[in-house]
Amino acid sequence: MNITPGPLLGNIQTPADLRKLSKEQLHEVSEELRQFIIDMVSVHGGHFAASLGVVELSVALHYVFNTPYDQLVWDVGHQAYGHKILTGRRDVFHTNRKYHGISGFPKRDESPYDTFGVGHSSTSLSAALGMAIASKFKGETDRQHIAVIGDGAMTAGMAFEALNHAGVANANVLFILNDNCMSIDPNVGALKEYLTDITTSPTYNKFRDDVWNLLGKLPVGKRFTRDMASKLEAGIKGVVSGSSNLFESLKLRYFGPIDGHNIIKLVDTLQDLKDIPGPKLLHIVTTKGKGYALAEKDQTTWHAPGLFDKITGEIFKKIPDKPQAPKYQDVFGHTIIELAEQNNTIMGITPAMPSGSSLKYMMEKMPDRAFDVGICEQHAVTLSAGLATQGMRVFCTIYSSFFQRAYDQALHDVAIQKLPVVFCLDRAGLVGEDGPTHHGVYDIAYMRCVPNVVISSPMNEEELRNLMYSSQLSTQQQPFVIRYPRGQGVMPEWRQPFKEIKIGTGRKLRSGKDIAILSLGHVGNFVTEACKDLLADDLQPAHYDMRFVKPLDEEMLHEVFSQFDKVITVEDHAISGGFGSAVMEFMVDHGYTAKVKRLGIPDRIIEHGKPEELHRECGFDAAGIAAAAREMMKDKVTVTAI
Amino acid sequence: MNITPGPLLGNIQTPADLRKLSKEQLHEVSEELRQFIIDMVSVHGGHFAASLGVVELSVALHYVFNTPYDQLVWDVGHQAYGHKILTGRRDVFHTNRKYHGISGFPKRDESPYDTFGVGHSSTSLSAALGMAIASKFKGETDRQHIAVIGDGAMTAGMAFEALNHAGVANANVLFILNDNCMSIDPNVGALKEYLTDITTSPTYNKFRDDVWNLLGKLPVGKRFTRDMASKLEAGIKGVVSGSSNLFESLKLRYFGPIDGHNIIKLVDTLQDLKDIPGPKLLHIVTTKGKGYALAEKDQTTWHAPGLFDKITGEIFKKIPDKPQAPKYQDVFGHTIIELAEQNNTIMGITPAMPSGSSLKYMMEKMPDRAFDVGICEQHAVTLSAGLATQGMRVFCTIYSSFFQRAYDQALHDVAIQKLPVVFCLDRAGLVGEDGPTHHGVYDIAYMRCVPNVVISSPMNEEELRNLMYSSQLSTQQQPFVIRYPRGQGVMPEWRQPFKEIKIGTGRKLRSGKDIAILSLGHVGNFVTEACKDLLADDLQPAHYDMRFVKPLDEEMLHEVFSQFDKVITVEDHAISGGFGSAVMEFMVDHGYTAKVKRLGIPDRIIEHGKPEELHRECGFDAAGIAAAAREMMKDKVTVTAI
Repeated sequence: MNITPGPLLGNIQTPADLRKLSKEQLHEVSEELRQFIIDMVSVHGGHFAASLGVVELSVALHYVFNTPYDQLVWDVGHQAYGHKILTGRRDVFHTNRKYHGISGFPKRDESPYDTFGVGHSSTSLSAALGMAIASKFKGETDRQHIAVIGDGAMTAGMAFEALNHAGVANANVLFILNDNCMSIDPNVGALKEYLTDITTSPTYNKFRDDVWNLLGKLPVGKRFTRDMASKLEAGIKGVVSGSSNLFESLKLRYFGPIDGHNIIKLVDTLQDLKDIPGPKLLHIVTTKGKGYALAEKDQTTWHAPGLFDKITGEIFKKIPDKPQAPKYQDVFGHTIIELAEQNNTIMGITPAMPSGSSLKYMMEKMPDRAFDVGICEQHAVTLSAGLATQGMRVFCTIYSSFFQRAYDQALHDVAIQKLPVVFCLDRAGLVGEDGPTHHGVYDIAYMRCVPNVVISSPMNEEELRNLMYSSQLSTQQQPFVIRYPRGQGVMPEWRQPFKEIKIGTGRKLRSGKDIAILSLGHVGNFVTEACKDLLADDLQPAHYDMRFVKPLDEEMLHEVFSQFDKVITVEDHAISGGFGSAVMEFMVDHGYTAKVKRLGIPDRIIEHGKPEELHRECGFDAAGIAAAAREMMKDKVTVTAI
Repeated sequence: MNITPGPLLGNIQTPADLRKLSKEQLHEVSEELRQFIIDMVSVHGGHFAASLGVVELSVALHYVFNTPYDQLVWDVGHQAYGHKILTGRRDVFHTNRKYHGISGFPKRDESPYDTFGVGHSSTSLSAALGMAIASKFKGETDRQHIAVIGDGAMTAGMAFEALNHAGVANANVLFILNDNCMSIDPNVGALKEYLTDITTSPTYNKFRDDVWNLLGKLPVGKRFTRDMASKLEAGIKGVVSGSSNLFESLKLRYFGPIDGHNIIKLVDTLQDLKDIPGPKLLHIVTTKGKGYALAEKDQTTWHAPGLFDKITGEIFKKIPDKPQAPKYQDVFGHTIIELAEQNNTIMGITPAMPSGSSLKYMMEKMPDRAFDVGICEQHAVTLSAGLATQGMRVFCTIYSSFFQRAYDQALHDVAIQKLPVVFCLDRAGLVGEDGPTHHGVYDIAYMRCVPNVVISSPMNEEELRNLMYSSQLSTQQQPFVIRYPRGQGVMPEWRQPFKEIKIGTGRKLRSGKDIAILSLGHVGNFVTEACKDLLADDLQPAHYDMRFVKPLDEEMLHEVFSQFDKVITVEDHAISGGFGSAVMEFMVDHGYTAKVKRLGIPDRIIEHGKPEELHRECGFDAAGIAAAAREMMKDKVTVTAI
């Protein structure tokens, strides 16, 4: 569907066009940009509320700063739709997040305006500081470096690390704290309360007014010299009476809070800040979903709503013609409650993904046993370890790609101490439209090398339930990883009674004689499809759902390698060091010499697209598996054909 | 050598004995404990200055709190010698850090007083908070949870994450900030400056006095009710005039700073704090190395000095009888300067290890091009990525086991964007006396699965230099890992002219016919020894130093597998998913069927000991390699013997 931009926006191919407009026209441009985003996302899908909240900021930044020479880094890039539309990608924006289309996040390959690829949160400050230090070293004194970061992202440790360094680095960097009290779910933690305090306290409001009055009275042009800035700083200190705020404690000059939807104020402020050297932080207050009433009211639902009728606000849902399989997330969310009702040592922890992971159900029902700790995977994992030392059985649910940020904690605090924390690695495998930064395709490799750890993956909802059940039995005393994909499973009738799964045991799903296909996790369903296809050709594949990659089911593998000289392994994971590699290690260690073909993700970055498009690209969808099997059995196929 | 404890210390087997003493005797106990540590470390080695700094704190904590019921977590456990000596390990303390002896860090297996294993920094707050939340859930209202953390460790992001959560968790936890302005090297960053400010500002000194006067005037016993505490809090707010300090911004009650060597004051303060519920932070100021003048003066040298004469302060160094090979660290430290003199895009980054990594030489010589960013590996890596986007060639030097903490950043910010950052992974392999938390034995597995990355390891100093040289050539545009071990190399004449090493090429060090031994990194020297041994038995091993695990030298591997049906791989790394596994993947992918034996670190936690003891235990020292080769050639050996 063709979306026509408003008249001003229609003339903006690059920020240079934007800068030709008068300041007074920027309100109109912002409204057109907002409307364009609403039109686009309602029809083509994507992230929604975050970009609406920073429409004015996006316009103001490109109006004031000389991008791309001045360098702009957007934290958690799904807020950057306005930025993309203003920087040459308006006419391809309908391909956003689609296979072979533009990325939903800033991406260096895509545009010189995208200075840094961002998908995970809280990286922007370090990246912008690096750019600023390089500029300083090169003597580019006029070059500006700006990072835009949400208050949710500010709770992650690495943001604090960057603040701590910025305060003493004496580089020219502006951090814009976009304070909307939300990441995907409402923010938590002391920092959030602190920010609420300072945006509402009379001291700060007075301080704010004083500063901006002062700015207004200064002569136009190069308003601030270093000397004046330092005087101003002293003045600020006075206003906030003796002590300093959190950011000033870390030696950053703090400005704000100001209304992030007042475009004129934003432009004036950014103009002024351009002339203040050194590290500084501007605190702006915005509303996530701004300008679309429903999104303002329910920001979690409208974070990425899918397609919707922009007039009525109706979010389109396919009406299923038969009972649907649930999402793995919901199976997790309901099952943990069932287990917690039977086992009072169970607790649930999520770093900022209560809705995404469905831990929210337990948080509502058992608020003293399930917690959202905010965007801080490292803390989430070591907190879980601390709880485990006291006999609690913690289900720590983290998206696989975010778990990378807690790798040291999983290894150092959980695995070395052999604490029985259960890691539910959500969104494991190719996640689809979010693309390379969010694909959870390394967890087997980086956990398999770690001693003491159990690593499992369910093929369906019932298996997920049974793995969860088995992981919390008192006889089970090891760290226990359960990896499962994003989205819908395959079993409408999923709520079956719990059955214990013995650790390190697989399932033989079909016997065969020509070839053995070994799968781990949900891709087993693709194998089932592939087997049907092969059977039609009179080929007899065996299928084993291995369930565990650590420990491997050695008895089953001896059976496989004694009976088959052709083996295929299938996993939704990088093939370097993954499940197939573990099977190969077993085979060679035990002196077997079968031909083994590993299907999974090849050793390159897989871009975004629908999961099924990506599975096909990587060759482990049902057709790919069947083709690989035929290729290995070429001789036999040929004979049959003759 | 037998060390006799002083008379008071000699009667303390557990903290219960300590608690029988009068408060007035604690000064004497502290002095005896300090003397015992000096005596022990001077004769047996180990970490030194950190534990001297917390002698009084160790005594006060075990005197005031009901350990081990009350739970005490020591951050970066090498400050915990006093704690170990007071909690049942005095008489085995001479085995500290020795093979099969007690660990140099707190360790859960070792004692119920060691509530949490700590080696890497900044984990203690999360762990103690987890324990406190568990206690709250179980209704153990009388139970105390204390974490002791240094100001250096406080700069790491995960400490901030824990503070942010603690402020709203309403659990009974006391964080003690041990402020000595040092980690191993002097601390850096804005937080350090902030702490200096608040320990010297008149406002805070007044605040401190007021608070403690107030405490003194309250009736003894259960001094604080929740209500009183909240009144006190309001009082504090008044004293510091309206705003709050950094910790109070995060909703922690802040107390201090107080003198951490005044045992009476410490005991009184801790007594008082016991009765204040909720999350609180006590800021104490100590001197690292306290009580040993030389250590107070040069804390970096005396962090872990080796053996020394406690009277003269002479640090014993073996007098070499011939020219010695340098440490790999020094080769790195001098080589980066040589390269930076030729290539002005080179920068060096270390997170808090300028001495350990030897980046200090460059920091002294080129202060605008080499930085210590403090204990913050995550920031260090993304900062490097930011610098790389501007054409800088950053050598980011991080200990392999600490690099685990920057895994997501290496993957998300560097590898996905294919930025040519050079990661010098120092202390890769079994590190020796620091033990499991510090062994850097997973990096190949967790980096090998990541696309776009080059992974290499030099067999000697010249190779390290040449890999560094090759990594910074402008034709080289990928992330480039160079892993090398702690300590001395093998080449006294190491400073040879640079030679380019083509990426993905190995070296054939000797031809052979019976078996091929493929090694990666410094273990190649063990193979050289083993080959001599095998030759003496008339066995003909070939030896290939593969140099790269990614990309593999495929041409060389085709040669190996075409010519040999017995292959041994050797690596100082976990064998699950490591170098040997990569070789196996190649072999099976290409249809070869050799017998392959992987030597390296088995799938279990390897404890501490001298590196050579650990290499032997794992079976990849020269004798182990030779034995494995003989075992594989048993038939031939037998035939020869007949």
